[in-house]
Amino acid sequence: MQPPSSFTAPIRSVNSVEHFTATTDVLICGYGGAGAAAALEAARAGARVTVLERASAGGGSTAMSSCEMYLGGSGGTALQRELGLEDSTENMLAYLHEALGPFGDEEKIRCYAEGAAAHFDWVESLGVSYKRAVFTERTVVPLSDESLLYTGNEKSHPFNRVAQPVPRGHVPSKEGDEGGKIFMDAIMQRVAEAGVTVMNDTRVVALLADDHGAICGVIAKQNNQEIALRAERGVILTTGGFVMNEAMTRQYLPEIHQYAVPYGNTYDMGDGIVLGLAAGGQAINMDQAFMSFPLYPPAKMTFGILLNQQGQRYINEDAYLARLAYYSCQQPEQKFYLLVQDEDYEPSHYLERAPIIATGDSIAELAAEAPFPAGVLEQTVSYFNEHAGNGRDPLFHKTAEWLKPLSKPPFALLEYSADAMKAIIMPGTTGPLIFTLGGLHTNIDGEVLNMNGQAIPGLFAAGRATAGLPRTAKGYASGMSVGDATFFGRRAGRRAATQA
Amino acid sequence: MQPPSSFTAPIRSVNSVEHFTATTDVLICGYGGAGAAAALEAARAGARVTVLERASAGGGSTAMSSCEMYLGGSGGTALQRELGLEDSTENMLAYLHEALGPFGDEEKIRCYAEGAAAHFDWVESLGVSYKRAVFTERTVVPLSDESLLYTGNEKSHPFNRVAQPVPRGHVPSKEGDEGGKIFMDAIMQRVAEAGVTVMNDTRVVALLADDHGAICGVIAKQNNQEIALRAERGVILTTGGFVMNEAMTRQYLPEIHQYAVPYGNTYDMGDGIVLGLAAGGQAINMDQAFMSFPLYPPAKMTFGILLNQQGQRYINEDAYLARLAYYSCQQPEQKFYLLVQDEDYEPSHYLERAPIIATGDSIAELAAEAPFPAGVLEQTVSYFNEHAGNGRDPLFHKTAEWLKPLSKPPFALLEYSADAMKAIIMPGTTGPLIFTLGGLHTNIDGEVLNMNGQAIPGLFAAGRATAGLPRTAKGYASGMSVGDATFFGRRAGRRAATQA
Repeated sequence: MQPPSSFTAPIRSVNSVEHFTATTDVLICGYGGAGAAAALEAARAGARVTVLERASAGGGSTAMSSCEMYLGGSGGTALQRELGLEDSTENMLAYLHEALGPFGDEEKIRCYAEGAAAHFDWVESLGVSYKRAVFTERTVVPLSDESLLYTGNEKSHPFNRVAQPVPRGHVPSKEGDEGGKIFMDAIMQRVAEAGVTVMNDTRVVALLADDHGAICGVIAKQNNQEIALRAERGVILTTGGFVMNEAMTRQYLPEIHQYAVPYGNTYDMGDGIVLGLAAGGQAINMDQAFMSFPLYPPAKMTFGILLNQQGQRYINEDAYLARLAYYSCQQPEQKFYLLVQDEDYEPSHYLERAPIIATGDSIAELAAEAPFPAGVLEQTVSYFNEHAGNGRDPLFHKTAEWLKPLSKPPFALLEYSADAMKAIIMPGTTGPLIFTLGGLHTNIDGEVLNMNGQAIPGLFAAGRATAGLPRTAKGYASGMSVGDATFFGRRAGRRAATQA
Repeated sequence: MQPPSSFTAPIRSVNSVEHFTATTDVLICGYGGAGAAAALEAARAGARVTVLERASAGGGSTAMSSCEMYLGGSGGTALQRELGLEDSTENMLAYLHEALGPFGDEEKIRCYAEGAAAHFDWVESLGVSYKRAVFTERTVVPLSDESLLYTGNEKSHPFNRVAQPVPRGHVPSKEGDEGGKIFMDAIMQRVAEAGVTVMNDTRVVALLADDHGAICGVIAKQNNQEIALRAERGVILTTGGFVMNEAMTRQYLPEIHQYAVPYGNTYDMGDGIVLGLAAGGQAINMDQAFMSFPLYPPAKMTFGILLNQQGQRYINEDAYLARLAYYSCQQPEQKFYLLVQDEDYEPSHYLERAPIIATGDSIAELAAEAPFPAGVLEQTVSYFNEHAGNGRDPLFHKTAEWLKPLSKPPFALLEYSADAMKAIIMPGTTGPLIFTLGGLHTNIDGEVLNMNGQAIPGLFAAGRATAGLPRTAKGYASGMSVGDATFFGRRAGRRAATQA
């Protein structure tokens, strides 16, 4: 017989603890964007706060990111408004509803859309600078110092039918892709000033429950020894997603696991999700992941057409990179290709090693080298060209801005198939990068909910340890994750701080 | 503050029980196919067994089904062999691996393939009759009395590349679709003879755990009063899937939930999954469902071609109904259509109310009434016809048996789109029917596993309360679910009966 589960389950009775190393009000597990936001707000609300971090320093995946935050509504953030851009809450809601569809959490969507503009003010107040300049090119993150850009599908079908396109990607101002470091350096300094205790190299291994099931502390490992910490108001799990936990990605994302490249920090191991489940929490949206194939920049590659192995188009190519990746990976065997003409070709800045597998001075010449069944490519291109010349895309509604006939040879066919990309990968720069969008089910105050939808007393979570605002690559906009993590991290911190 | 979770969580300390209504060895929750198989085997292994059933009578979803069981291997079942059909375990494994792909549980696949032929002998030994006759038409379930048929994708691409096609659907012999009743009547009689106690109208509401976390009984509701029952060897959860629990399908299958029609019995409410989670179990594969669009019979409709709203083909139309449904629902807006010529048309036996939305004496004439962008249908049909005449389908590899040019007018276009079907549904007979394929993570002996993959002492599960053999509609074969439920139900019963 196996050992009883209580010996291994990451939840224990507080009565089993003989000595507490420390007692605090709010205990935060994980010092990335969500944890830092929660810590600062809890401390500012008057609570004693301790943060435990498994790594040797704070930062988490937020520090590794561009720190784009997807913000708008309320007429516009300070940055949007100073650039003359209006963004009503209704407009942002219309976009988010289209983007998240049935995956979305209505309360979180509404709360976020109503509070996002004020959240920007809060981020600036931390000492993070945003330049009042908008980057208008189609890109992933500007390497110049503009602070506002489009980071989603706002300008493309079907989103352009339901909402007025507005750029909502807010990124700290500095040349190069260093937004995450800028933000985390600033907020960690504010956290230190607020008197928060931070313990690095400290991994939470179990939650402590009282006789009523309320969470009142944790067991952590430090220097390979277990210590117990008591939390008088609440424990907040901000340990990140589970993309680095191979057993979990294999279990919850069995198909994507096969070809995707995990994107995150070493400790995105799902620790908080496992802890929350043990306490009676519910894990939802576990099968969904952010996915990215940054086929652009250069933006002009968007004039090309994406094809599956049947030689069929399957999406409007002006969609955002996460949406391109989602639909590309739905194609048979995750095989897909970009057909582009000479004047629009330049190696992708991120996928520059994608092989050109066929070329030709005519489509027929290229088709002879291409992996499609004979005759289909000619049909597909002929149909596309016929309408692109009139600025129309009857099949997938690519916008006129990116439509022109493929009529100027030579032509090239690039392979971006998932397996091909994985084989030539340079870590962090290419391949179908993913991070997870599933986690603990929480309400807008970060309370972890059980199967009945009731809050588990004393237990909170935020960031990618939860199923938050972003739920699907199909409608993902960059900045939804850091935006969500910091926005709902703050709310969790405030709520925990004000518990009895 | 919310009430402490212990007041609502479906797990309680055994110490809280003052009086036990009964004590048994093995307590089984749910009296469908899995529960009956578990009960019989546990009793035959010498255990005292009690079965609790929420409904007023046993049967569960198995009784409502055709009771197809997907069986083969070991050279062939008695039925296969007596019909001159050979089916090696390797051949069955090759098929199952292709069918389940990364979703499959390797241990369960192997255990099942190795034991399926003997399982057939066991089913016959219960007093269930199988006629030594094979039904060769492409169908869902034979309404005549043959007992063997194809119920999966064996004969179609890509499965026909990796395994020798053999019919593996075993259905009790009787005219009409009554297999489930025949099977459940027989096994419930054997269960009664084995001295098992059955309590109907009794719903399990909580598990009882001892101080070591081992499960040792349950709290159930009977006549609106709580009773406690002690289980000295184990509790087996066989409560079915969660397709009737709207909150759960909305949560775990957000997209499918929008258009699908639940298919199961009233009490497929996920009770056992919720109980198992509270005990520290893991719920996996929760985003996957069986899906069915029975476009056939009549089989000759297979000569038609399926089209998405872009007028593109997207699958070999000779695939099995669950696979057709899976890929159809992946098309934009779940919109899809069948183009068929007069000589192959006859209303579908199950979806006979599917509307014909366009007709014509030529493809161009039909296209003028069809919802596709102008010009695409002509291209698609022209390409299909060019190759179908040579018995080839370069795009999707429909087998030659079902290939002929669409060249004999008049033509008709039928709409089977998910929303259209749901709107005209007749319960139980049409629409995209689904049942759930996610549930508790168990090993091949039915032990419920925690997040660390360790067995939770005293807790077992089988059937659709678990993630069993079938994992995805893409590779589903009818008979996988009842086959799995009864096969692993038996194993769970035996293992529980022999616990200390």
